[in-house]
Amino acid sequence: MAHSVQRPKLARWLAETNDVTQTFLSAGLIPGLINMAGGLPEPTTWPASDLSTLAAKAVSEHPGDTLAYGPLEGLPILRDLIAARFSAPGLSLTRENVLITTGGMQALDLIGKVLLDQGGLIAAQSPAYLGALDAWKPRHPTYRPMYLEREGFDPVAALRGAQFAYTVPNFSNPTGRLVGLEDRHQLVAAAEATGTWLVEDDPYGTLYYDGAPLPRMLTLSGKGDSTYEGPVVYLGTLSKELAPGFRIGWAIAAPEVIRALVTAKQGSDMCTSGLCQRIAHDAFAAGLTERILPNVLALYRLRRDALCAAMADHLHGLFDWEVPSGGMFVWATARDPELNTDVLLREALAHGVCITPSSVFDPEGRNRRSIRINFTLNDPDKLAEGVRRLAKATLAASAKAA
Amino acid sequence: MAHSVQRPKLARWLAETNDVTQTFLSAGLIPGLINMAGGLPEPTTWPASDLSTLAAKAVSEHPGDTLAYGPLEGLPILRDLIAARFSAPGLSLTRENVLITTGGMQALDLIGKVLLDQGGLIAAQSPAYLGALDAWKPRHPTYRPMYLEREGFDPVAALRGAQFAYTVPNFSNPTGRLVGLEDRHQLVAAAEATGTWLVEDDPYGTLYYDGAPLPRMLTLSGKGDSTYEGPVVYLGTLSKELAPGFRIGWAIAAPEVIRALVTAKQGSDMCTSGLCQRIAHDAFAAGLTERILPNVLALYRLRRDALCAAMADHLHGLFDWEVPSGGMFVWATARDPELNTDVLLREALAHGVCITPSSVFDPEGRNRRSIRINFTLNDPDKLAEGVRRLAKATLAASAKAA
Repeated sequence: MAHSVQRPKLARWLAETNDVTQTFLSAGLIPGLINMAGGLPEPTTWPASDLSTLAAKAVSEHPGDTLAYGPLEGLPILRDLIAARFSAPGLSLTRENVLITTGGMQALDLIGKVLLDQGGLIAAQSPAYLGALDAWKPRHPTYRPMYLEREGFDPVAALRGAQFAYTVPNFSNPTGRLVGLEDRHQLVAAAEATGTWLVEDDPYGTLYYDGAPLPRMLTLSGKGDSTYEGPVVYLGTLSKELAPGFRIGWAIAAPEVIRALVTAKQGSDMCTSGLCQRIAHDAFAAGLTERILPNVLALYRLRRDALCAAMADHLHGLFDWEVPSGGMFVWATARDPELNTDVLLREALAHGVCITPSSVFDPEGRNRRSIRINFTLNDPDKLAEGVRRLAKATLAASAKAA
Repeated sequence: MAHSVQRPKLARWLAETNDVTQTFLSAGLIPGLINMAGGLPEPTTWPASDLSTLAAKAVSEHPGDTLAYGPLEGLPILRDLIAARFSAPGLSLTRENVLITTGGMQALDLIGKVLLDQGGLIAAQSPAYLGALDAWKPRHPTYRPMYLEREGFDPVAALRGAQFAYTVPNFSNPTGRLVGLEDRHQLVAAAEATGTWLVEDDPYGTLYYDGAPLPRMLTLSGKGDSTYEGPVVYLGTLSKELAPGFRIGWAIAAPEVIRALVTAKQGSDMCTSGLCQRIAHDAFAAGLTERILPNVLALYRLRRDALCAAMADHLHGLFDWEVPSGGMFVWATARDPELNTDVLLREALAHGVCITPSSVFDPEGRNRRSIRINFTLNDPDKLAEGVRRLAKATLAASAKAA
């Protein structure tokens, strides 16, 4: 039949996807599975009733903002609000420094489109956020891994010649690691010395459980100019502060970069939903995000502690890890050098628990010693049961590897 | 100062943008300008009160659908509704054939990512939608123009070897031309004979003012399979049927293509706003789109007629055009072979009217004889005044060219 004609091949990068993704897709079908793999927030933290009211008012009081095509850059009122919210002593931000994006994810896609030529070089904190690797895959980048925590790390050598550097200083996905103040200063200095753009991806910047937030690299790079002109491209999102379903994020950068991102956004989705932007603005303006934050922090702190206590009970001797001081994840590295965590994932699924293996956070897929465990989605009892299942799965996987 | 360090160059494709875009950006600042350049709908057609109620109920009754990360492919209820809405005798669509996109624009971006390798060949109806050209620019495609209306056009020769063919059969943007039934059959047959994917971009498919809608190429390519497996990739949008501010579109295609588009969407914006998807579903389900359509058609028919009457009064002898039987645009070609419509745009702005010159719809920017005029945004008086200004601007531009 006509339908059997050979069609043109799909774009080459599609053939390079990790089969772990397929494994995840099938995991959704396993009954009783405890999912500690994703990076999902706890739905009970969302103020649905307030948001329902805001949504109705957004449409009825601002039909122009909510129902029309909006400006490519985002609604001016929301850009102004973000500029004011992130300004600080020495850091003066204006509307020209802000682009509203369709979730934080779109900012990563747009950054790939404007800062990266085909095959270009990215200096990336390693291991790196899977979503960023996905976003840039169609442009076939080359990666130079940055291990900020290692003795002798040289930020200038790391950044030199890269089209941009990519970091998640607050509770990195996947490792949960907090980049210290001195390292932040050094990265900013290296960006200024080498001229390389420094992407500061900050979805977890409000999720500090144990101490006061460190200054952003965006803030550290402020020179008191009337409009920020520095090397940092800062990315934020509403997904962790309020709710992910609005798909609202923002990029803050020098106007030159914002203009280029706008050109790329025009050919990506034209503009972000005006309804969602208006709700985001009104929620910030009403103090809704500040109102819910203490509950979010208390809940996630409790769950982090529950996970780490269960790990101390059941995974000691099997894994090494550090207790993260914020974010959504614990990163654990297997003591058994023969344990392949891609294999462990399949064993874990057979035992009714899902975690994320380290291979997906490595552009070359070679790191197979570690796992990422999420603690925000499940209550303490489920976290404990998940860890018990993971311990059994680890012993089974090690026994097979031996 | 440190900020004067040379930064890495931005990606190369950004240097290739047309300066007409800059001209448009500055046009917004001209007081009293009559904007006949864009493709904007009339805001009074939007049922704001109904949509306000739907928005509030969407959040309060379906917080999971609206506030959480949704499935990459879109909400199952909306995918099912779209599948049912576009199924026809011989064309059986299921959820597996449908991807929800962030506006119709995102579908074009995703198609570039999955069907086009760097520098790949696109067979495109010519002149072509500017937004599609923008979406694909980062991948540096090669274009083979298709002039479907020309004597001797050979669809098989046109499609052979292309990674995909791009068409807007219903009231093409920019020409307003309707592709006839026989040409639709031939394009589908050529797609089946050559194996090339056939993209049917259909934002104006509901905007028929003078006759009954022709069958979609998607429908013509149905073979009665239980799940559509044919060569057409059909793109639809809520922007013209309801309102653009929700940024809801859909792609309908063989499951193999949908799966690839989903992979690309994961790295583009993760998922489309659940709130906007839920509102789109509920608006379709409540018959809201059908309820407002008669008013929209009556309003736009009147405006098309007003524009064409004013053109007959003031532009005869200066331009040739055909009265479109639907859509949002009239395409007019200058009789003066010396008239450059990029120059005419600047003269038009000086006379207080804005139209779109043909160069932006040509991947190589060479077509400078025609203009696109929108008739949906302005009332008849403004349309007539805009045409009077355009006539004066044309005479002025021709005088300068002579």
